[in-house]
Amino acid sequence: MAVTSAGTKPVSTALFTDKYELTMLEAALADGSGARPCVFELFARKLPAGRRYGVVAGTGRLLDALPAFRFGDAELAVAAEFLEPSTVEWLRNFRFSGNIDGYREGDFYFPGSPILSVHGTFAECVLLETLALSIFNHDSAIASAAARMVSVADGRTLIEMGSRRAHEEAAVSAARAAYLAGFDSTSNLEAARRYGVPAAGTAAHAFTLLHTTAHGRNEASAFHSQISSLGVGTTLLVDTYDITQGVATAIEVAGPELGGVRIDSGDLGVLARQVRRQLDDLGARRTKIVMSGDLDEYAIAGLRAEPVDAYGVGTSVVTGSGAPTAGMVYKLVEVDGIPVEKRSTAKESRGGAKRATRYARRTGTVVEEVIYPEHLEVPTGEGQTATALTVPLVRGGEPVPGLPTLEESREYLKKSMVSLPWEGLTISAGDPAIPTRFVTAATGR
Amino acid sequence: MAVTSAGTKPVSTALFTDKYELTMLEAALADGSGARPCVFELFARKLPAGRRYGVVAGTGRLLDALPAFRFGDAELAVAAEFLEPSTVEWLRNFRFSGNIDGYREGDFYFPGSPILSVHGTFAECVLLETLALSIFNHDSAIASAAARMVSVADGRTLIEMGSRRAHEEAAVSAARAAYLAGFDSTSNLEAARRYGVPAAGTAAHAFTLLHTTAHGRNEASAFHSQISSLGVGTTLLVDTYDITQGVATAIEVAGPELGGVRIDSGDLGVLARQVRRQLDDLGARRTKIVMSGDLDEYAIAGLRAEPVDAYGVGTSVVTGSGAPTAGMVYKLVEVDGIPVEKRSTAKESRGGAKRATRYARRTGTVVEEVIYPEHLEVPTGEGQTATALTVPLVRGGEPVPGLPTLEESREYLKKSMVSLPWEGLTISAGDPAIPTRFVTAATGR
Repeated sequence: MAVTSAGTKPVSTALFTDKYELTMLEAALADGSGARPCVFELFARKLPAGRRYGVVAGTGRLLDALPAFRFGDAELAVAAEFLEPSTVEWLRNFRFSGNIDGYREGDFYFPGSPILSVHGTFAECVLLETLALSIFNHDSAIASAAARMVSVADGRTLIEMGSRRAHEEAAVSAARAAYLAGFDSTSNLEAARRYGVPAAGTAAHAFTLLHTTAHGRNEASAFHSQISSLGVGTTLLVDTYDITQGVATAIEVAGPELGGVRIDSGDLGVLARQVRRQLDDLGARRTKIVMSGDLDEYAIAGLRAEPVDAYGVGTSVVTGSGAPTAGMVYKLVEVDGIPVEKRSTAKESRGGAKRATRYARRTGTVVEEVIYPEHLEVPTGEGQTATALTVPLVRGGEPVPGLPTLEESREYLKKSMVSLPWEGLTISAGDPAIPTRFVTAATGR
Repeated sequence: MAVTSAGTKPVSTALFTDKYELTMLEAALADGSGARPCVFELFARKLPAGRRYGVVAGTGRLLDALPAFRFGDAELAVAAEFLEPSTVEWLRNFRFSGNIDGYREGDFYFPGSPILSVHGTFAECVLLETLALSIFNHDSAIASAAARMVSVADGRTLIEMGSRRAHEEAAVSAARAAYLAGFDSTSNLEAARRYGVPAAGTAAHAFTLLHTTAHGRNEASAFHSQISSLGVGTTLLVDTYDITQGVATAIEVAGPELGGVRIDSGDLGVLARQVRRQLDDLGARRTKIVMSGDLDEYAIAGLRAEPVDAYGVGTSVVTGSGAPTAGMVYKLVEVDGIPVEKRSTAKESRGGAKRATRYARRTGTVVEEVIYPEHLEVPTGEGQTATALTVPLVRGGEPVPGLPTLEESREYLKKSMVSLPWEGLTISAGDPAIPTRFVTAATGR
């Protein structure tokens, strides 16, 4: 079989779906309720423990996946194993034709924020549940963790290099989400191709070890080879053997114009100072120091006073730094204009379609997020600026023209970061950066 | 653009790769070292904190991905942006033609176990690093967590329903890994299609809420609809409103032959007893109780004494229950027959190609895993049975014929579980279930 290139053809996304979406569909089509107009909302009941904010990510990927949410023969064959022929025929003709509103990609979210509002018949909306949640739960978990790292890195370069610690497809989406959140580049080539994320990378320990001969180690030979291939602007990995010797050899081979050295193990703070001093003494004052090796936002914060120029972050960013999923849910909130909600011992949801507004002081610092019933008029805050958080994303099944690009969403988040109260930007555990208030239809405020 | 079916065409897996693999390749091809015969090993330095064993998963997926690790025009276009034309031409003709040995999929692993040994030229082996690690780190993390749940579920049914909490493609692989580890079924339809994992699922709260009318809630109408569509063997979700009322309505509508009821929230232990009593009182003695709602291995263990028939597990299994990645690494251990290893302040690796044997008492209980230099003869343990853990997987780039199917690997693990010492099967934190001993070439033992 010929191997084709990934990403050149849209493949069906319809089976990234839980079986029960389709059995519910069948029962709802049979009893007529499948045609009822509904609103589903996607939101997180809470933030991961101690987190101050979440970052919405996945919107762009959902909009890419939506046109491919179609059932071809192969998907229908799976459905036909447990569905009636009439349901299978319905699926053959299915395309989502409803409306979707939601938060901008790259915006903050807090507990209860209606990140996505999906309007359509029950039948068409219920089918999107698993796919929408998969995308938002993954991408938002990564972006939320990444934003904390960006915030503590305080302008220093951040390279996402965690592909190897994540599922190969999740790694591509993780690279996108980290970039959205402000990372500078990724190691992942598929993310570079698919999303235009700048790719970075130099060499691994294996490359130095490869230059071992019967006469023993030969770090200098590995460095020579890398420089003759990539130029003196490259970054040499100096901790395969002895770091001090590695740095000395690096400058000996490359000269003081060497682009950078990378250190991937050891006590990074101590090493950063030592290596900076050594580089300066060797005249390599502009050679950058890149640190990697199990860094997370706390380790990055710990290195804040050290002479580190760039951080390579792997495991922690692609696994959401302790929160690998955003815990978002997709709930039916309105049927035929009637607000509905689950009422049981736990796990409440709030009925009725909603939209959200965030209020800020004149200084730009946000103070409160308010969730309104969709039909209520939203007050402009007195002495405050009000930003509508709910914007149109899909109309009649088609993405609204002119939605922001990944770069634009990245820029949007970058600007928004300064609007959070300063204590909301700390990485220490605490409450959400701003309170969320729910306005009920009854009170109007 | 026409939408084609996922999985019907092999798409290239070549760009699931870190950029530095390709820049190392270019430098190594240029200086001649790319042709040196090498051995890379894939292993975990340690298990996640407190874990007693890991489960190898991903082997089958790697072997599926290997033939598609080819550079077509689209992949070469990406490579051409930063590589010399001669390297691009080399990639155009590339196919992996080396040998791979490794542990059986579904076998246990412990710290240092050489799960995969990749033999070939540096150039061809280094390219596989990211893809191999992505697959094994993800799949083994899921299987290792899932096996703990299977072990404490003690024969009760386990349904994997976590797709919505994981990246949409990772969810498919997670369903496969959980099934390998002994889960009975998955909610994920793509996993059913791609890997033949049995699919399960009934209804969500949305389906009950959908049947709300202007006159108010109508749980009975939702139950009627589900039963007329799926039959009385279905499982009804009874916790949308009041659980006791929900159970009463369910049996009223379905009769005592109802297949099952599902409870997704609340104090599951207390509810299980109450609902069992209520069902029995209503004559529904064979109606099963399915519990879901943030279950992990500890919650499942806590429900051991309760009358629960099946567990639906979501978030915890697809995120590895606290360990979302297995932390495996891919290290160059031998060049031209010379053992090589990194020596720095931390992160040691052991040089030289290795193979592994596990020793068991005559009773079948394993006692020790021993890692030998590849060329040494492995002693048959005195009074013990020795099982070679390293088996051929790929020869000359082609998968060895007759490798186990997913079902066979699942069966293999199931049988192996009873070989662990009993304390190694507990879910409480502790040391690895058995010690691993490294035999050096120098001592021979």
